[in-house]
Amino acid sequence: MAQKPSIPKGTRDFNPQEVAKRNYIFNTIRTQFEIFGFQPIETPSFENSETLMGKYGDEGDRLIFKILNSGDYFDKFKTVVKDLSEDTITGDLNPFYNIETNFVTKHISEKALRYDLTVPFARYVVQHQNEIDFPFKRYQIQPVWRADRPQKGRFREFYQCDADVVGSDSLWQEVEFVQLYDAVFTALGLHGVTIKINNRKILSGIADVIGAQDKLIDFTVALDKLDKIGEEKVKAEMLSKGIPQSGIDRLQPLFNLKGDFGTQISELKEMLSTSEEGKKGIEELEFINTGINTLGLKTATLQLDVTLARGLNYYTGAIFEVAAPEGVKMGSIGGGGRYDDLTGIFGLKDVSGVGISFGLDRIALVLEDLNLFPETITNTVKVLFINFGEAEAMASMKAIKALREKGVSAELFPDHKKTIKQFNYANKRNIPFVVLLGESELSSHTYTLKNMSSGEQQQLTLDELISALH
Amino acid sequence: MAQKPSIPKGTRDFNPQEVAKRNYIFNTIRTQFEIFGFQPIETPSFENSETLMGKYGDEGDRLIFKILNSGDYFDKFKTVVKDLSEDTITGDLNPFYNIETNFVTKHISEKALRYDLTVPFARYVVQHQNEIDFPFKRYQIQPVWRADRPQKGRFREFYQCDADVVGSDSLWQEVEFVQLYDAVFTALGLHGVTIKINNRKILSGIADVIGAQDKLIDFTVALDKLDKIGEEKVKAEMLSKGIPQSGIDRLQPLFNLKGDFGTQISELKEMLSTSEEGKKGIEELEFINTGINTLGLKTATLQLDVTLARGLNYYTGAIFEVAAPEGVKMGSIGGGGRYDDLTGIFGLKDVSGVGISFGLDRIALVLEDLNLFPETITNTVKVLFINFGEAEAMASMKAIKALREKGVSAELFPDHKKTIKQFNYANKRNIPFVVLLGESELSSHTYTLKNMSSGEQQQLTLDELISALH
Repeated sequence: MAQKPSIPKGTRDFNPQEVAKRNYIFNTIRTQFEIFGFQPIETPSFENSETLMGKYGDEGDRLIFKILNSGDYFDKFKTVVKDLSEDTITGDLNPFYNIETNFVTKHISEKALRYDLTVPFARYVVQHQNEIDFPFKRYQIQPVWRADRPQKGRFREFYQCDADVVGSDSLWQEVEFVQLYDAVFTALGLHGVTIKINNRKILSGIADVIGAQDKLIDFTVALDKLDKIGEEKVKAEMLSKGIPQSGIDRLQPLFNLKGDFGTQISELKEMLSTSEEGKKGIEELEFINTGINTLGLKTATLQLDVTLARGLNYYTGAIFEVAAPEGVKMGSIGGGGRYDDLTGIFGLKDVSGVGISFGLDRIALVLEDLNLFPETITNTVKVLFINFGEAEAMASMKAIKALREKGVSAELFPDHKKTIKQFNYANKRNIPFVVLLGESELSSHTYTLKNMSSGEQQQLTLDELISALH
Repeated sequence: MAQKPSIPKGTRDFNPQEVAKRNYIFNTIRTQFEIFGFQPIETPSFENSETLMGKYGDEGDRLIFKILNSGDYFDKFKTVVKDLSEDTITGDLNPFYNIETNFVTKHISEKALRYDLTVPFARYVVQHQNEIDFPFKRYQIQPVWRADRPQKGRFREFYQCDADVVGSDSLWQEVEFVQLYDAVFTALGLHGVTIKINNRKILSGIADVIGAQDKLIDFTVALDKLDKIGEEKVKAEMLSKGIPQSGIDRLQPLFNLKGDFGTQISELKEMLSTSEEGKKGIEELEFINTGINTLGLKTATLQLDVTLARGLNYYTGAIFEVAAPEGVKMGSIGGGGRYDDLTGIFGLKDVSGVGISFGLDRIALVLEDLNLFPETITNTVKVLFINFGEAEAMASMKAIKALREKGVSAELFPDHKKTIKQFNYANKRNIPFVVLLGESELSSHTYTLKNMSSGEQQQLTLDELISALH
């Protein structure tokens, strides 16, 4: 019996219109990446499990898709269990029932699907360090896979678009990434995004000042919720995590922080005057802000947000996050920051890096909501030739060949069906032009070009037809 | 301890130069696909196992990469085994050792990585049949995965580039696919490829005529080897497979088949005069040949090859295969054909299809061998600004911003290092131009542009710099 076809939950088919829209976003991002001097790399869809496991925390390990070993993997596993049962679990007649999933996985799976682009990139840099000229500006646009519970806007297969520089700690790169965000969103017509910036050193400095350095993570996790739960609840959470009331009191200027970048920086300077790390963070933010003020942004705004934490353990300097224009309900559409020891996990120390990422699916949803996709990108073939039979079709194919050589997309309806059916097909596919080449046109060496939206018809020579469609 | 980083066997990292070359091929193919009226779709990297299993034969089933179920899959499996041991294998104290790999796989894996683009396409057509306007011309450029033993030119992850039309049995499509091959290879500068064509009905007709219809597969498998093992060995193999000597004698005209398309067709007509199916195959070939003769090919040659079989069980009409230009040692760089019931496996009957495929990796090897990649495509960023310190860098960033807005890729060396080091970096990355903006240029508002290959230097204003690089 035939199967009823379906796809795994959390995955998607993309039809021609969807592919065209996604490619429009990819191409816009790729063009700006290259204009900014980033170069593409690609890594395999699956990595050795040991490359990925343990890099994303326990939850990450669970969400990584593992690939079964090929061949008779279970026979090999039986041998492992046999040895085990003789050595360590002798006496148990059926060790099988004591085996745990994680133990099995280690023995029957050696490869896993890419979970993000950052760890494979770190692996790439270390593996190819002798071929790379540092600083290395790379971009990567590839799918990643996560066994997350699927929900609206969250998929098990999705694309990441990352740009990173490794091998330099220059702050000009932070300036450049702010410009890059601005350039991409401007090119996409998505004006008015907010690029939020913070610095891990600021967060660390604040923790210093309030005597909560040993509770840095609890402190920032609570602070990160300010937007959502408000000042009182943030304070309560901090208290419950063991941050003393006296420290929380000293935080008050932070909750009152208002105004533009410069004003906020002045307040922070006062607050962090006793923390060396905090002062360093302020210095870095000022450098970036001065650079951006001097160079200007086209359509985006740079905004200091001292509550911004993201993957704090990961970032060591600047932290970025991009919010959609005001009024659009959507989580962050981009994020990134500086990390000082990404490649250390693979044995290459002291390589500083900084990078940003674009959230393709969310950007697509925002462009759809705001009707920002150019109309032209969903167009199908430009012209369909109606099929009136063999001789007419052959003449059509000649004209089609000439059009294609000029770069005009053109096709013949393959079958000699009723004209109305062929017109219906052109309509359904939104083909803008149709050419009729019937008996009379064949004898007069002309082509009847019909504009499908206006209904207008013209009788043309081949040269005229080509110029009309070119 | 740090891991020594590596990637799974049969997979590849692609560096910026390699990505650029591959994208050049993809883009050339994609452009021609779209000019010919094909539209892109994309399907998920993994499918439900039942969609893929059983579609590629036993060997294919073994080579499909299976994905482990998430969560505590082994606990669930224990329950299955427990039920089993009570029901069917009671008495055995340890059923674990009797379990076979295939049985385990069915219970711990529900998803598998795409093995080709054809079966997912068939699944797509059936699943979305109500949204599709037939005839449906789709193309698809995505990676596939096979657990094949890796060897030179054979990988476990590789791209396929397919174009197919489903929902029409018009032979104009065969004509179009020959033109499409010609257009793509011409656009890639790969002149002189041979597009071999055959027809399943011809093979079937010959088998009719020699009384070997029940041995069609043995017959074609032997015939397919003519190029490699020669006439005598082909005959011996046929005899050993039970094809009678009298039938093999009647094959003699086939071994003597020479000359152009028309001459060969005449010989075949005589030979197949008693087979209805054979005559139908000749008619189809003649239609395609007449079409191509009338329309002409740019740089490729269409050649009849009655020994061409490929996946015989799969194809029902035309069979295509493309050989690299004479003198290039390489297997086929493309192939395809007509299949009459692809979607039947998913419950949609009588949908005829025809399609072709491009072998990306082999095409890349051929272009590399023949030095056909355009020099421009491996270029990195166009201009690097030397970093002479903070004030100079800020002025450089202003010029860089102006260049980028004109679409010129430009970057600042991020650190204020020795000039010689910065020049070395530009050389290693093959950056064609360098701009020096030091103290004297800063005061005179000029830019020194150095051509890195000629060594020539010019002192320019910003406007002049932009026109020089634009």
